[in-house]
Amino acid sequence: MSKYVGPVEFPCEITLGRGLEGAITNVTKIGAVNGVEGKLIYRGYDIKTLCDHSNYEEVAYLLIYGNLPTQSEMSAFSAELKREGEMPAPIMRMIEGLPRDAHPMNALQAAVAAAGCFDKEGWEVTKHTSDPAAALEIERKVGIRILARTRSFASAIARAQMGKDLLQPNPDLGFTANYLYMMSGEVPDETMCEVMDVCLILQADHGMNASTFTSMVVHSSLADMYSTMAAAIGSLRGPLHGGANEAALNDFMSIGGPDKAAAWVEQRFAQGKKIIGFGHRVYKALDPRAVVLKQYAEKLCREKGFGDLYDTVETVERETLKRMEAAGKKIYPNVDYYSGLVYHALGFPTQLFPVIFAVARTAGWLARVLEYLPENRIFRPRAVYDGASDLKYVPMGER
Amino acid sequence: MSKYVGPVEFPCEITLGRGLEGAITNVTKIGAVNGVEGKLIYRGYDIKTLCDHSNYEEVAYLLIYGNLPTQSEMSAFSAELKREGEMPAPIMRMIEGLPRDAHPMNALQAAVAAAGCFDKEGWEVTKHTSDPAAALEIERKVGIRILARTRSFASAIARAQMGKDLLQPNPDLGFTANYLYMMSGEVPDETMCEVMDVCLILQADHGMNASTFTSMVVHSSLADMYSTMAAAIGSLRGPLHGGANEAALNDFMSIGGPDKAAAWVEQRFAQGKKIIGFGHRVYKALDPRAVVLKQYAEKLCREKGFGDLYDTVETVERETLKRMEAAGKKIYPNVDYYSGLVYHALGFPTQLFPVIFAVARTAGWLARVLEYLPENRIFRPRAVYDGASDLKYVPMGER
Repeated sequence: MSKYVGPVEFPCEITLGRGLEGAITNVTKIGAVNGVEGKLIYRGYDIKTLCDHSNYEEVAYLLIYGNLPTQSEMSAFSAELKREGEMPAPIMRMIEGLPRDAHPMNALQAAVAAAGCFDKEGWEVTKHTSDPAAALEIERKVGIRILARTRSFASAIARAQMGKDLLQPNPDLGFTANYLYMMSGEVPDETMCEVMDVCLILQADHGMNASTFTSMVVHSSLADMYSTMAAAIGSLRGPLHGGANEAALNDFMSIGGPDKAAAWVEQRFAQGKKIIGFGHRVYKALDPRAVVLKQYAEKLCREKGFGDLYDTVETVERETLKRMEAAGKKIYPNVDYYSGLVYHALGFPTQLFPVIFAVARTAGWLARVLEYLPENRIFRPRAVYDGASDLKYVPMGER
Repeated sequence: MSKYVGPVEFPCEITLGRGLEGAITNVTKIGAVNGVEGKLIYRGYDIKTLCDHSNYEEVAYLLIYGNLPTQSEMSAFSAELKREGEMPAPIMRMIEGLPRDAHPMNALQAAVAAAGCFDKEGWEVTKHTSDPAAALEIERKVGIRILARTRSFASAIARAQMGKDLLQPNPDLGFTANYLYMMSGEVPDETMCEVMDVCLILQADHGMNASTFTSMVVHSSLADMYSTMAAAIGSLRGPLHGGANEAALNDFMSIGGPDKAAAWVEQRFAQGKKIIGFGHRVYKALDPRAVVLKQYAEKLCREKGFGDLYDTVETVERETLKRMEAAGKKIYPNVDYYSGLVYHALGFPTQLFPVIFAVARTAGWLARVLEYLPENRIFRPRAVYDGASDLKYVPMGER
């Protein structure tokens, strides 16, 4: 981790690449990606530990508050998520009125932005209060409400696109189970909830990625939480950010079974094509999320009748790794390699995949935005101008 | 301008401050802010030249395409803006269904995001086409559509909040006149259009400000144009970015006339309070936008019966400058100092002010996003982790 760990004093000297590579946004205690060692940490806890022992609600609490909750803190937080997850009726009607073939990320952005029109709590609280601690508390409260609602909107959009009536959350179920229930109308079993929790935990935070960065830039003008989260959803919409798991799954499903996987990989390499879901800009070692997710993916697929697809995916991985190693390349599967397979086995339509990512990441966006607020400075980098100057305005008739 | 002008080679060594101060996003030919000399340039033309000779439609063309249009190019662009400015019926119904006291920036974000659900042109065109020039052309076309629609949505939101029926654009009017017409229902006179054009021109682009930066970050994941523009609107929503003109106007209106202005300024200084609309992070000299706008503000106010308010504002400026000079401070009025006054005289309710800013800036967002696309690299800076690691998960009962 070297230069990205430890305190930093601004101004500091850095080497800057394209896409702001190397630039430092702030100092954080929320999470760290160690690309060299293949480690991902939330608030000091390794991601694998959290997947094996915790659930998404607890991890969201950990990210937002900075510590694992006591029993009573957890109960209060769960109750809050339950209460806030109810959808306002006008937003339900709006979701029902969107075209069924709308991109669900556009729909999610629209739903969150529209919900911001109906919820005044937190509007410019940062501007009008002279008590920063009180402002932070209101911002957190509104943010947790948006987290709960975003999950509900995500399920509602899935239902609406399947032509089914929307469902409000089931008061007997937690955050993760409700996500599946509100989409399918069926109470999910233990394995499904366990795997879904792992997926949400794994995608809850991941350093200063483009959508997290977007949320911080937007909120740094002291925009309200709804505007902020809607903006971050817009960023995650892009195929360079979300979306790779859908493409990977489509590839896997086109192969036609594990016995054809090796030949498929051979052909891809012969054609010079990439294996989607391999490689990551940050991880030069294994992507720890892929390692964790693989185990849970296998369990789920075997239980739910997707064993053949799992074996196909694993064979592609093994064959690809063999070739990468032979070529001396340290390129490994990333989280997108397995997540599409898992979402498919959980019953999600492929176009919904980036929406799950958005629901999970809302906790990370919120945690980072709240952390930056007390030391807020509006983000204002520079573009370098390399154009003309002092041009003379020529009237239209003379152009 | 020194180090912010001319080509730059990445990677480069820079001094980085908080809020990404000093970081370089990219090299641009679109516009430059010269804070030291108090100059603002679009595509090589000084802002004052454009305000005196051009109009917003032509300036939008200039920003987007890089050169002033010929007569036939201008006709085609005007026709396109007219055609694309028609609002889809579902979005009109949605705007009518929002609470009348919703913040209009939340409403505008929701309208643009929802419109993205109904318009598939440009969805992931950047992902699915192997022809970058064709992708750029579609992105530009969709962007121009959003520019025209954002203007219409802005007027519609104003109408809806006044409890009036929404109006579609008047086919006999241009972009700027329609903005005023669709809000008031009356065809504006020449002075109103002229001043409104100046306001829109002055706010069309302004270096790498937070909302422009947001649009670039979001689009760098190859998100579609609607997601991108909705995100940028979210950023502009924040009181640190838009919003100062409303606060300035409220102050001016509370003074009670030009004869009380000097005493008001004296009292503000005695109380150690700021004069809102004075000073700017970038401009260390005069804000050129304020200089231009002041002349047009005076003409409009005298014609429309706001002469007393104008005199109040000018007296506050003069008295403040006197005190700043005496204290050796180079602090001058910025664009927000006069823009609120002008919008008030044009008949805009104060809460609509940031929406005008958003309409104007859409051209700048679009120009910058299109310019970056051929050399696109996703923005991914770093946060420095200064938290714990290797924490042991303690079961809940033992916490």
